[in-house]
Amino acid sequence: MLSGIGISPGIVLAKAKVKKEHNIEIIRESIKDINAEIDRFHEAIECSKKQIKEVRDKTLAEIGEKEARIFDAHELILEDVTFTDQVINKIKDCLINSESAIKEVSNNFIAIFNNMDDAYMKEKASDIKDVSERVIYNLLGIEQCDFNSMTEEVIVVSKDLTPSDTASFNKDKVLGFITEFGGKTSHTAILARTLEIPAVTGINDLLQKIEDDDFLIIDGNSGQVIVNPDNEVIKEYEKKKSEYEKQLLVYKKYKDKKTISKDGINVELVANIGMPSDIKGVLNNGAEGIGLFRTEFLFMDRDRLPTEEEQFQAYKEVVQKMGDKPVVIRTIDIGGDKEVPYLCLPAEMNPFLGYRAIRMCLDRQDMFRTQLRALLRASNYGNLKIMFPMISNIDEIQEAKKILEEIRVDLRNNGILFNENIEIGMMIEIPSAAIMSDIFAKEVDFFSIGSNDLIQYTVAVDRGNDKIASLYDEFNPAVLRLINTIIENAHNEGIWVGMCGEAASNTELIPILLAMGLDEFSMNASSLLQARYLISQLSVNDIKQELPQILQMQKGKQIQKYISKITNIRK
Amino acid sequence: MLSGIGISPGIVLAKAKVKKEHNIEIIRESIKDINAEIDRFHEAIECSKKQIKEVRDKTLAEIGEKEARIFDAHELILEDVTFTDQVINKIKDCLINSESAIKEVSNNFIAIFNNMDDAYMKEKASDIKDVSERVIYNLLGIEQCDFNSMTEEVIVVSKDLTPSDTASFNKDKVLGFITEFGGKTSHTAILARTLEIPAVTGINDLLQKIEDDDFLIIDGNSGQVIVNPDNEVIKEYEKKKSEYEKQLLVYKKYKDKKTISKDGINVELVANIGMPSDIKGVLNNGAEGIGLFRTEFLFMDRDRLPTEEEQFQAYKEVVQKMGDKPVVIRTIDIGGDKEVPYLCLPAEMNPFLGYRAIRMCLDRQDMFRTQLRALLRASNYGNLKIMFPMISNIDEIQEAKKILEEIRVDLRNNGILFNENIEIGMMIEIPSAAIMSDIFAKEVDFFSIGSNDLIQYTVAVDRGNDKIASLYDEFNPAVLRLINTIIENAHNEGIWVGMCGEAASNTELIPILLAMGLDEFSMNASSLLQARYLISQLSVNDIKQELPQILQMQKGKQIQKYISKITNIRK
Repeated sequence: MLSGIGISPGIVLAKAKVKKEHNIEIIRESIKDINAEIDRFHEAIECSKKQIKEVRDKTLAEIGEKEARIFDAHELILEDVTFTDQVINKIKDCLINSESAIKEVSNNFIAIFNNMDDAYMKEKASDIKDVSERVIYNLLGIEQCDFNSMTEEVIVVSKDLTPSDTASFNKDKVLGFITEFGGKTSHTAILARTLEIPAVTGINDLLQKIEDDDFLIIDGNSGQVIVNPDNEVIKEYEKKKSEYEKQLLVYKKYKDKKTISKDGINVELVANIGMPSDIKGVLNNGAEGIGLFRTEFLFMDRDRLPTEEEQFQAYKEVVQKMGDKPVVIRTIDIGGDKEVPYLCLPAEMNPFLGYRAIRMCLDRQDMFRTQLRALLRASNYGNLKIMFPMISNIDEIQEAKKILEEIRVDLRNNGILFNENIEIGMMIEIPSAAIMSDIFAKEVDFFSIGSNDLIQYTVAVDRGNDKIASLYDEFNPAVLRLINTIIENAHNEGIWVGMCGEAASNTELIPILLAMGLDEFSMNASSLLQARYLISQLSVNDIKQELPQILQMQKGKQIQKYISKITNIRK
Repeated sequence: MLSGIGISPGIVLAKAKVKKEHNIEIIRESIKDINAEIDRFHEAIECSKKQIKEVRDKTLAEIGEKEARIFDAHELILEDVTFTDQVINKIKDCLINSESAIKEVSNNFIAIFNNMDDAYMKEKASDIKDVSERVIYNLLGIEQCDFNSMTEEVIVVSKDLTPSDTASFNKDKVLGFITEFGGKTSHTAILARTLEIPAVTGINDLLQKIEDDDFLIIDGNSGQVIVNPDNEVIKEYEKKKSEYEKQLLVYKKYKDKKTISKDGINVELVANIGMPSDIKGVLNNGAEGIGLFRTEFLFMDRDRLPTEEEQFQAYKEVVQKMGDKPVVIRTIDIGGDKEVPYLCLPAEMNPFLGYRAIRMCLDRQDMFRTQLRALLRASNYGNLKIMFPMISNIDEIQEAKKILEEIRVDLRNNGILFNENIEIGMMIEIPSAAIMSDIFAKEVDFFSIGSNDLIQYTVAVDRGNDKIASLYDEFNPAVLRLINTIIENAHNEGIWVGMCGEAASNTELIPILLAMGLDEFSMNASSLLQARYLISQLSVNDIKQELPQILQMQKGKQIQKYISKITNIRK
């Protein structure tokens, strides 16, 4: 049994198909005709672009818009003159063949991005690797590995999979995959979840451990892989698989139901989305609205700010598609850890404690005002609510509201319609906002608790830092006390509170959040039905009686155990 | 009037002496005899080392041990083979003169360190600049600027001052200085404060604004510089100067007094130190003990861990010099933002939310156990208390105490003496610890509030990040609520609470901290007497009555204004 990280859920049993590492040796050859060599390079670029467009179109048709955008990013690399010019200069200056020139330039870029110790930048490195390999293959005239032509059902085993590989999978034949590299947020992982292919990553020396035609079991839920299991284990996992699938069917029955506890407490179950194309999945999973629409996608992977019109169209599309269901749209939350070159953001020593989100918006008001205008205009087409992120003191929310009011006046003066009763809310994700939530509750119509950041700041742990991962604990009693305080303070002022961090979909935490009185749970679409089912099994008032005791406990582990005990009894 | 940053307090009036920028053009010359050139380079290195040793010895004799260590760091640069080998390779590979080789290599290092966006690394860059200039001057046979030979009283004006420049000042003649570059924590600023020379930095295009013999006023308290003032302004500042000096004399009268408020509330006024040699200044300023002895100096600027014996000697020296006064020693607080090469710390995306302090100690227990053994052994020689930093959850403090207990048992078994009743405390500098302080108070003998970090995490602001400096607010009401909670929880369990962040010496905050019941105020030695004087003027019980109202206020600015109003009335 090998233990890795499950990056896409589900259980699957099948034979291994190992993707061998191409050990293409690139020979540094001297060239004489510079122009001919540069032409050769340009041809390979054009050919690669054509291929990327094909993968992109296939992905758009068969998978989705968000996934197809991965290949837009690939195309951008080939159109990036800082990249291509460096290759051309290398060809000219060193008089070497294109293959070597690309390899040297791309290795340099990959090393730089990998050294940045940032998931987003590492993903960029992996994109550059994918693209430059493609160009080199085209220069060498080598056919690229085609997962489309599999003839039997397999589990793909590979050191690494590029998004191009994953997108080209024939879903009928590739039942799952295992890799050595790639994390939960990698492009490949996102594709796997969308394709609903179980997948596990993070297994060291994978290719030494698995050979072609080994029989494999992947458990994408637990991250486990079993190689050549005996019959007993196979039976056990076949049972697990069928139970998991049966459970999924049970969940599916809750699609059109209300979200209501066993003892009749009604809450709102809504989804987090990143772009308009996510709506299909959201509605398929019975969301009662959107609790968090992150607007960053409009600002990233491009070379200038989006116009008011572009933003308006995106927001309008989302609210219209959601009908009369609520849609909470968060204003831009970008900072020094994201690559948005045209914003010229300063490199920061601690970007999570830096210039970002509302801090940047109040400083660069042009950008902020454009977004607010687009949001207000879109509010005329559905049930749109505006939410401000990273509020740490009262001046920020008052300033944001003042700017919004100025835009309202301007729109009214120009006869442009918007919802005069639009709800305005704020994220509570910084400890100071949680502690001062009695004061903040007088300023807004709702709170949404950003549990990921709130935990991160409350315990002073970067949640992306593996070395201290154990300190990032959703059950940390300080965090639970803060959440309880926020909800109490909100209800005292008569406003509602949601949560849009990962804690909102944590099945062990949902009972206590319900007991505290959380009004709205916002999560990834894939978690919605399980959450609705779980809530229907819980007696909220019984758990509520345990709350004072839970909030006096010393440790997260104690709390986790206790909740699991009391909810098991009462399920 | 020019506005900068005061880096060393005091007011001074004198003529300007502008240090011209040396525009030494270094010509890249081809050489033929590689060995001769390398010999030339080695000679310049030896000569520079000799000079550095002289400055170091002068600094040690006239200023202090801590300041002399700056030049140990300079010597280390010249002994660092990664530096000298690069220069030698450059000479060999490019066949160029030593001057150009050094300049190219050092510029490269300086660029790398400057890009790191970290005060410590920037200081490293400035050290490399200082040292390589010295070597180049020696190669060229140029005499270095000698501030020792001034014949009249001046204020030195310079784009930048190296620590070498500052240490060579003739204190009788150089009354103050102004620079364009350098921050509050730069080596130069530290030297200025120790020499008690008023200094201002951060004034752009300084050399275009001030010429030789301009008459200047420097206010190192407010950071202001006035060029060629009229007589009225001169009179005004002469008055200010004499008031400031009179005030200093008033403060000095409090040196041997108790720290007691007007209405008889007694608190403890103690000092923060960084190394044993700071004790002299601490005692001169009437400290009642050490509230924070940072032990990082033992671990930095060296190439291996300090031994138990080295640590024991340092801790013993401090407690012995302090007699029966309390000395709180904090265990190592180092992380990814510090350069400690032999610890091989990972580069981190957000080092302030990273692997550091107690997190590292519990992971690398060998290092931690050695320090705890040294501390326990030193506890036999005075009133030593041990304090753990960066505690975020209860497991950490329990684990640290468990390790300490194991060492106690071992020492007892080996007949090694230590104070069996030693007090064990923890820093409260992470919001989760503040929120859970009721639980933590049952685990330790005292708390010390690290206000700098507590503010930083509570409002999610890196205090070194200029772009968001206004959000880092010591009066932030959320922070004040947390501090009040910590003190209440501590007193409920019968333990004492100190504070060792900058807030403890903020004269506007001291009244409210007294009202909350803070038991111990720990600060830089230079702030002690002013604090003791201020406390003697305050009626704590009157301020206490205002506390509930203050803790309900919305904004830091409101609180600041209100405190200033009520304390002015009652002074």
